[in-house]
Amino acid sequence: MVNYQESLNRTFAALVDPTRRAILARLEREGSASVSALAEPFTIKLPAVMKHLDVLDDAGLITRSKTGRTVTVGLRPEPMREAVDWLRRYERFWSKSLDRLAAFAESKEIEATKRTGKP
Amino acid sequence: MVNYQESLNRTFAALVDPTRRAILARLEREGSASVSALAEPFTIKLPAVMKHLDVLDDAGLITRSKTGRTVTVGLRPEPMREAVDWLRRYERFWSKSLDRLAAFAESKEIEATKRTGKP
Repeated sequence: MVNYQESLNRTFAALVDPTRRAILARLEREGSASVSALAEPFTIKLPAVMKHLDVLDDAGLITRSKTGRTVTVGLRPEPMREAVDWLRRYERFWSKSLDRLAAFAESKEIEATKRTGKP
Repeated sequence: MVNYQESLNRTFAALVDPTRRAILARLEREGSASVSALAEPFTIKLPAVMKHLDVLDDAGLITRSKTGRTVTVGLRPEPMREAVDWLRRYERFWSKSLDRLAAFAESKEIEATKRTGKP
């Protein structure tokens, strides 16, 4: 249970920063990328990007492998599953508002049918 | 877009702490609760709980209303929807592993059918 909580702490902490989210989003699209390619779109310096990669690595969200002088970063999305599962319990609130919206649309339709006689 | 990113930053930052997650989970179950009732299960002192409530409030995840001397805390889950939507793009990785699992189970079933002649 402690491990589960600590793992959630680390996952959410990793997701707090928009640069780290952008790195994860890019890995989701491209599968894997070199550190220098990942750093390229950002205005921050390479060492700052490396620190973000350390945080993602500590959270178990990426893998890093070295071939010669190139470090390739890959996505390891599993910890995000726990985060989604944790957040899912709140989904019923959104479905509730969708239900209300559907009920409202339906009542408007009935009103219109009564007025015009046409469904 | 900046507002969207900032809102995600605040939501994920609010979810980093297990005490704040426990408060949100309780509000999900009970609808609303007084500050003193929320603080009761924790070993931390009331001012520390109040600080956690401030963080949740800043992230737009709770509402607070005062009646006499009692502050009632309610859940405002909407910002979590953005967080779930952000995380959802990684779902295909989990479904992939489920697909692999299903394929594995199916191959085992075919094997067993071949061996025993019974499906």
